[in-house]
Amino acid sequence: MSRYNTSDDSCDKTSLLMQLCADRYYISPEAFHTRTCTYGPLGTELKKNIIEQWTSAVRSRAYVFGITTSVQSRMCEESVRIVNVGDLQEILHQESLSKKEASQKIQTLMKASVSVRTSLLQGALQQYIQALELVNRTLPFGLAETGLCHHSDSQLRHSSGCSFEVTESSLVWFCSPRTSSQWMDYWAHQRLQWWRKFALGPSDFDMCNVVDEELKEGASHGVKVLYKFPWGLETLETLWSLGDTLLLKTHQGTCTKLQCRDGRKSVVPHVISVSANMDRGMLAYLFNSFQLMKKTDNKQKLNQRMVLKLHPTLTPVKVALDMGRGSSSELRQVCEGLFQEFLEAGISTWPGYLDTMSLSLENLHTKYDEMGVLFTVMVSESTLKGGLLLVRNRDTTIRETMHISEIKFFLLKYISASENF
Amino acid sequence: MSRYNTSDDSCDKTSLLMQLCADRYYISPEAFHTRTCTYGPLGTELKKNIIEQWTSAVRSRAYVFGITTSVQSRMCEESVRIVNVGDLQEILHQESLSKKEASQKIQTLMKASVSVRTSLLQGALQQYIQALELVNRTLPFGLAETGLCHHSDSQLRHSSGCSFEVTESSLVWFCSPRTSSQWMDYWAHQRLQWWRKFALGPSDFDMCNVVDEELKEGASHGVKVLYKFPWGLETLETLWSLGDTLLLKTHQGTCTKLQCRDGRKSVVPHVISVSANMDRGMLAYLFNSFQLMKKTDNKQKLNQRMVLKLHPTLTPVKVALDMGRGSSSELRQVCEGLFQEFLEAGISTWPGYLDTMSLSLENLHTKYDEMGVLFTVMVSESTLKGGLLLVRNRDTTIRETMHISEIKFFLLKYISASENF
Repeated sequence: MSRYNTSDDSCDKTSLLMQLCADRYYISPEAFHTRTCTYGPLGTELKKNIIEQWTSAVRSRAYVFGITTSVQSRMCEESVRIVNVGDLQEILHQESLSKKEASQKIQTLMKASVSVRTSLLQGALQQYIQALELVNRTLPFGLAETGLCHHSDSQLRHSSGCSFEVTESSLVWFCSPRTSSQWMDYWAHQRLQWWRKFALGPSDFDMCNVVDEELKEGASHGVKVLYKFPWGLETLETLWSLGDTLLLKTHQGTCTKLQCRDGRKSVVPHVISVSANMDRGMLAYLFNSFQLMKKTDNKQKLNQRMVLKLHPTLTPVKVALDMGRGSSSELRQVCEGLFQEFLEAGISTWPGYLDTMSLSLENLHTKYDEMGVLFTVMVSESTLKGGLLLVRNRDTTIRETMHISEIKFFLLKYISASENF
Repeated sequence: MSRYNTSDDSCDKTSLLMQLCADRYYISPEAFHTRTCTYGPLGTELKKNIIEQWTSAVRSRAYVFGITTSVQSRMCEESVRIVNVGDLQEILHQESLSKKEASQKIQTLMKASVSVRTSLLQGALQQYIQALELVNRTLPFGLAETGLCHHSDSQLRHSSGCSFEVTESSLVWFCSPRTSSQWMDYWAHQRLQWWRKFALGPSDFDMCNVVDEELKEGASHGVKVLYKFPWGLETLETLWSLGDTLLLKTHQGTCTKLQCRDGRKSVVPHVISVSANMDRGMLAYLFNSFQLMKKTDNKQKLNQRMVLKLHPTLTPVKVALDMGRGSSSELRQVCEGLFQEFLEAGISTWPGYLDTMSLSLENLHTKYDEMGVLFTVMVSESTLKGGLLLVRNRDTTIRETMHISEIKFFLLKYISASENF
């Protein structure tokens, strides 16, 4: 009998997935202890794919531009700062200083130190004037950025996953005050649709309005995209309708410089901020795609089969290349040829043929299912004879033969078709 | 007569380029004052393209995997630390504490704070054991990462460009001690070739050996890739042959766990570290592609023409879409259709047709040349009548007509052909 009951034993499912993520190169085992974002090769690729899709979705409108702002923040009130400990210690070691004098020197040092940003919004607001020129004062337009933010402990009280350093993806949207509430609805709808598009279980992604007490400074309205983790709901993405308050505050006393055309009128635009936590988003897709199934092996023993059914667009490895029986040097040559062909076509490929420790076919499939590998391509004696490959599909577990000349086109078609589901 | 003399007035050329970078959305004007990495839309895209090409070049070998490590460093000796100023102030405000007690408390706080990494090498060495499993102890293999590093002031004494926060791209290569010097030669050669591949003036990129006095701890040999900026040579990329010292130091006393197969023997691999400063690399390509030419306009006035001849693969905008004379609503519809078509094909496109302030054709070309836009496509009355577009090439300045059904394929072919030069 299986220890695992998919319906209610969510705690076990969580620890199984976390173990899988460590074993299968998604999240580095040490990350669990140190609560840092340390990802293995597969996690790195998955996060990259998610960020790429997020960015291309918000940039599918004409006037959205990517920007890069500094991790150094110029907001004085922020308390997380980068400090050179050497300078601090120099003050502490000066015997001649009284406590008060030392204290004053430390305060001065702190004021001169740079703080680190806690969100990407401020940087985009600062680039607003320059961007205005770029679009010739035509509304609407947007500034997009993905980057590291530092969250202080207080921001983290109720959260899980990665602490302190978080990769955020942000869109700051400038639009006419007339249309800002429609745009808020548009983006909220778009964002939820986007998260669901790549989900195996779309209903675990949901949306809610932010209650008045939790509204951000300057915001008249807020919407959150949530994911139902086994331990509860967590926010993946937040949208704020910010009016013009923060924009005016950022560019104090330069109201005319801020104005844009809205038909024949000149207006100071309203700001909508969209910001997603990509580390938590990645965790959501891992949980969402994790399937635990019971199966009976040929000795009538009950086993569990674990599969990461990540969306074809997101999954880090699209295809694994392995060798069956036969003349290994010749088979290896075929594998190397295919590997280069796939690489050039941009198909992320796992070079299983380099592995000298041979696994049984069943163990190989178990490993690749846990890695979320979409297809396993087996090169064997019959490839050398007649050009035939054995191709196994992760989701259907069906194996079929295919001619070597067709495989690249087949994979490209399969992946691009899945984007339009 | 022109104020500018291309051969020796390098200082003027530098300030012209810096002004162009600010005007044309490469580098944010404020970045010059604050010495931070703040890039506009074009700079952001250029840097992204450079990083993508760097990564795909080092990952063209089978066993190179991407990883993500934390910006938090666990090296105790590093002095740049992230501190919560609130905690520090709490100690300073406690009246009852003596200076000694306060000092001790601050020291404890500093010890508990996290330091920020100054390079990506340490993170890769820490992931070594996990990666070993991934490749089944087969040499050689590599771990690649791109990420933000913080440089302290002392590291910056002799450098220009961005300070403090730097985007580094790193490859840490593990190989048999037998072959490590060949691999060092291989990578040094590869890396220089790579920088030169995308250069307009390849000879400005060069390589030199690191002299003994400047060798990094644990390194037996070092090589630098340099760029000849107008103010002198600066290092873009550094390669170190590190032996096994740092690897053994990172995983203290676990020598057998570090061993790999080298034929029939078991060995602790040697480490080669390759690390590039992407912010400075971007600056190098901007300088390298900047061309200042004198030209005479139709009123016999001498002007200068500035062009950013960035490589087709790297240049942030491949094509600008603009409208000529004619029924503007119909022309705009054609532009929007083309924009979407280019977007879906992954061709980065500038929506010039959205700009309501019409420039003369000459001013438009001046603007796009300064932006480094590869092609300008003009949609006009003859597009509506016979499907013909006017296409202008940045580098040849030749304008030719082309049928609307051919343009996408033409652009894709032009860009991909330029990669194999």
